[in-house]
Amino acid sequence: MEPFAAVVPPDEMVRRAALDRHEQLTKPAGSLGRLEELGAWVAACQGQCPPLPLTRPRVVIFAGDHGIAARGVSAYPSEVTGQMVANFLAGGAAINVLAATAGAGVRVVDMSVSSETPAEVAKFKVRRGSGSIDTEDALTADEVRAALAAGRAVADEEVDSGADLLVAGDMGIGNTTPAAVLVAAVTGAEPVTVIGRGTGIDDAGWMRKAAAVRDALRRARRVRNDPVALLRTVAGADLAAVTGFLAQAAVRRTPVLLDGLIVGAAALIAEELAPGASAWWVAAHRSVEPAHTMVLEQLDLKPLLEMDMRLGEGSGAAAAIPLVSMAVRVLAEMATFADAGVTGPA
Amino acid sequence: MEPFAAVVPPDEMVRRAALDRHEQLTKPAGSLGRLEELGAWVAACQGQCPPLPLTRPRVVIFAGDHGIAARGVSAYPSEVTGQMVANFLAGGAAINVLAATAGAGVRVVDMSVSSETPAEVAKFKVRRGSGSIDTEDALTADEVRAALAAGRAVADEEVDSGADLLVAGDMGIGNTTPAAVLVAAVTGAEPVTVIGRGTGIDDAGWMRKAAAVRDALRRARRVRNDPVALLRTVAGADLAAVTGFLAQAAVRRTPVLLDGLIVGAAALIAEELAPGASAWWVAAHRSVEPAHTMVLEQLDLKPLLEMDMRLGEGSGAAAAIPLVSMAVRVLAEMATFADAGVTGPA
Repeated sequence: MEPFAAVVPPDEMVRRAALDRHEQLTKPAGSLGRLEELGAWVAACQGQCPPLPLTRPRVVIFAGDHGIAARGVSAYPSEVTGQMVANFLAGGAAINVLAATAGAGVRVVDMSVSSETPAEVAKFKVRRGSGSIDTEDALTADEVRAALAAGRAVADEEVDSGADLLVAGDMGIGNTTPAAVLVAAVTGAEPVTVIGRGTGIDDAGWMRKAAAVRDALRRARRVRNDPVALLRTVAGADLAAVTGFLAQAAVRRTPVLLDGLIVGAAALIAEELAPGASAWWVAAHRSVEPAHTMVLEQLDLKPLLEMDMRLGEGSGAAAAIPLVSMAVRVLAEMATFADAGVTGPA
Repeated sequence: MEPFAAVVPPDEMVRRAALDRHEQLTKPAGSLGRLEELGAWVAACQGQCPPLPLTRPRVVIFAGDHGIAARGVSAYPSEVTGQMVANFLAGGAAINVLAATAGAGVRVVDMSVSSETPAEVAKFKVRRGSGSIDTEDALTADEVRAALAAGRAVADEEVDSGADLLVAGDMGIGNTTPAAVLVAAVTGAEPVTVIGRGTGIDDAGWMRKAAAVRDALRRARRVRNDPVALLRTVAGADLAAVTGFLAQAAVRRTPVLLDGLIVGAAALIAEELAPGASAWWVAAHRSVEPAHTMVLEQLDLKPLLEMDMRLGEGSGAAAAIPLVSMAVRVLAEMATFADAGVTGPA
């Protein structure tokens, strides 16, 4: 795979122009708080102020199974991954409802689901299930390159189709285990501090997960300084694809709302592969998973929402899309003091 | 004015049924966090599970001027209140943009604006400007009753027209001063702890505001145990109308998203006039104004958003409407494990 192209930062001049415009709109300066910063960020991403209202926000769910699930690290069996892909396609999952409410489209990409999925979903599939990362590599060298390239290609397809806000989501039973390992490997955190309850494991499951994270992390540390090798060793095809997607979104100058732990773990690697990419991302929410807070600290991102969510699928990001829409429309549609004949501050 | 009718609590059986339904939907139990509780609350308010999706959320902005503004407690002159009413009607204010994005309608009710406003907006108007509360009562006994009754009548009109989620907003230069006095009077807080920067006053303005709050609070304490007398003495017609609106929304079993400080101060009084009303309210956000955090503690409400907003107009509440829409639609539209053929937890 070719390296990612250089990331150009969002336009700082436009961001300042947007903040200046906020001072002219009929409200006390700064009174919309973080909505003002958020609107200025989108304007900077678009390179124009006022920014254009969002017309095509898109959620892409990358699905994959994980060999580590066989170690009993999840409350659900692996077959649920493929069943949930069908549920996404039928429109019955949480992300379908949240995205529909937010006016966003949903796309599903099967990277490594163990079962068969429809052809249009499986065109980037690299394998069935990723390796059990406590004892073996998640992917081969060819597979990790293919998965990163798939994420990049999907980002290109979405941007070329007019996406103006991107969300990556994930679906894969067992996926908080590789995500926690990635976070620990990148941040240097102790294994025990990165392990959450995932879909809702009991204490025995938590101990199995802790052993899996410990063993995988031992394997991960050998390749800590090589992001692609790290994905190959302890991630999975879904996580690698999310990584490529997030990096390429930044290369293509398209703003991204980050979801929770899985996407956050991929974001840590994407920032290494495409330095500066994180300037194109806003953290939509803070997940209950403890390792997600480490991601937010590492990337210096402050989440918009703290709703105690922990579902994945891009659900936390979808919940925040309306705030982005509002932030943009405030800059685009509000009257100025001059327009409205309203007296400014003394 | 007649006392408010008894408030019946939201249906606890339905709330539990909604939480049970959440366990059946295709997601790990509890994984949507506060969205799950929020949906269950709306179901309980509607008395049915699954709840009906919101079709008519409504924002009502109560506008009024405040004599205390002449003491230099605001960064803006009083004429801005009437100018902003015109801006609301023209669609140029922040609340217009936020409500439109959220699919909510906006109505403006002039309770006590100093200038003239269109007849359809002024039909409940009780006076021009409220008294300067540091030295005189805000309202007469007749006026406070008329203002409370106006808020009640507006709530009735909105509910009778099919409103399924209500937001009260406020517009009135100087209004954080009476609101802070109400909060201090109800909670017993020291004056200096309830005073924020409002629209953005400087240090000299803050000191003038502190003196005004201190003087008004001295007058307020004489009537502390009589909620209507408290409104008459140190509130204003806009605040009294918001109070009546919030109380009657609860009487009419209609859920309310509470905005920031002004609405919160009125909510403290509404809970006294209609005990149990607060069960029909959810706090949409936490304002930057320090007295608003006291309101949230007093009513034991945890806000959905913390976006550092401090605009008023119902803007913080409007920003949270999409979260309510999502929470409701999750319960109404998501597939169950059985429907979707997804295997449940082990």
